[in-house]
This record gives sequence, C-alpha cells and structure tokens, in this order.
Amino acid sequence: MGDKPIWEQIGSSFVQHYYQLFDADRTQLGAIYIDASCLTWEGQQFQGKAAIVEKLTSLPFQKIQHSITAQDHQPTPDSCILSMVVGQLKSSLSWLSKECSLLALLSLELAEKHGCGLCVLRAVWQICGSPQSVIFEVINAELIVNN
Amino acid sequence: MGDKPIWEQIGSSFVQHYYQLFDADRTQLGAIYIDASCLTWEGQQFQGKAAIVEKLTSLPFQKIQHSITAQDHQPTPDSCILSMVVGQLKSSLSWLSKECSLLALLSLELAEKHGCGLCVLRAVWQICGSPQSVIFEVINAELIVNN
Repeated sequence: MGDKPIWEQIGSSFVQHYYQLFDADRTQLGAIYIDASCLTWEGQQFQGKAAIVEKLTSLPFQKIQHSITAQDHQPTPDSCILSMVVGQLKSSLSWLSKECSLLALLSLELAEKHGCGLCVLRAVWQICGSPQSVIFEVINAELIVNN
Repeated sequence: MGDKPIWEQIGSSFVQHYYQLFDADRTQLGAIYIDASCLTWEGQQFQGKAAIVEKLTSLPFQKIQHSITAQDHQPTPDSCILSMVVGQLKSSLSWLSKECSLLALLSLELAEKHGCGLCVLRAVWQICGSPQSVIFEVINAELIVNN
C-alpha cells in the first residue's frame, strides 16, 4: 500500500471503515458526517449530521452485507478526495444480490477542524437494476420468515 | 425545470449533452475537458484533455447507446457540481445490457475561464457486473458479424 498515492490510501481506508460501520452498526456513521454534509439517497436529499444519521439508521433492514467490486479515488483541487465505489448488497438469500454505487466527497480539512478522522462532505447512493424499495421489501420478508 | 435548483438544472443539461456526444461522436468530448481534467476509466487513470480524448476515442466499439436510469447532482463548497449517473450500455444485441456508473465533478469557474460552456474537472467511469473488456469483446464480435 506504501507505493500508492496518499489520496488512494486515505480513500481505501475510508471505504473499508465506512462499510464496516454501515454493515455492523449504522448509528456510528454519525462520527464521519458534519452539519455541512449532504446525502442523496436514491434521489432523496438530506442535509446535516442529524438528518443523515436518522435516514441511515431508519432504513428498513437490519442485516445486510456489502461486497465491494471496484473503488476509485481522485484528489480534487481544493484538497478533498473524490471516491466512487461499486459493490453488491447481499442478504443471506443468495439470489438477492443487487449492484449499488456510492459517491463520496471526503474533506480532510474539515475532518481536522471537527476533530474526526474522516469527514464525508457529500455522498450519493444509487441502487442499480431495480428500485431500492423492492430490495428492502424482499429483505424484510426474509427477516420476517427467519424470525 | 424552472423550479429545480440551478445546480440540478446545470447537472441535468451536462448529462444530456455528455451522453449525446459520447454516443454520437466521442471526438467532440474534447470540448468539455481541460488540461487539469482527470479521468479514471475502469481503474485506469488519464490526465489532461489530450490523454482523455485519446482514451475515449480509442475505446474498442463504434456504436453504443446509453440509457440513463438515475442521476443526482449536488453543489460543492468550492462552487463545483458533483454529478452521479447510473445507466445502461446498450448495443443492438438486446441481451447485451450492462449497468454503468459515471461520476463527474463539473467546474463552472474553469469553464468560464477556458471559454467552454461546461468543464469536467474529474470523471470516473465504472461498469457494473462484468469486466468492461468482456463487454467490448462481445460488441466487437457483434460488429464483425454484422459487417
């Protein structure tokens, strides 16, 4: 990893950290958003740490796993890092596997200012293939059946 | 369209313009890149207008169509626009249809400075589902068969 540019190392660390929190305990994602952060989730817009954490923690599924298939990072002229991640949402039903994309704009300057290791300034989530609601309905059905 | 925020109007116009050029005549995409632009295409990095246009015009397919399924836009603190697009690459073979994602960071300030209507400062392309090379090989095979 030492021979990779610094923005790629930071971007990769962010992706690993973000998905670990997302899959294990979404309430902890509040640590990487600030009040200036914006999230677009499947076309819905949320601004500020509180609104974003409320959205992420109220998603209608409890257990899900991400499998990352590709990630790319670029530095921006104002010292941010632009990350794009493509992966799969997976549940324990093997046939339920949907492509998803995350775009994130990371600010190192604001992370330092706010005393957090990483700061997500802008984020966009999109689910490929079929409407997110369908995916979540299926996952809910599965959870009900399993319980 | 008039009730949409200005960044969303500009972002939507960019997406329409970009895909029209991409599908019809990729040589014209040079007009929206500058020497400070960076492109990551399926993990490969290209910097500067010349290198980006060379990559985009040397892609091993002649005819392709994009079908856009979702697009989201956000303004950034330094007056850029962050756009994320999910769509499908389509050829005339109906079974060949792959999800693709494009991230673009648009700079209005640099567009004005360089005398172009739109300026793509950062771009990332990712193909979901299967390696791009496989898709392009199939498209090439199709073109050979059709010719």
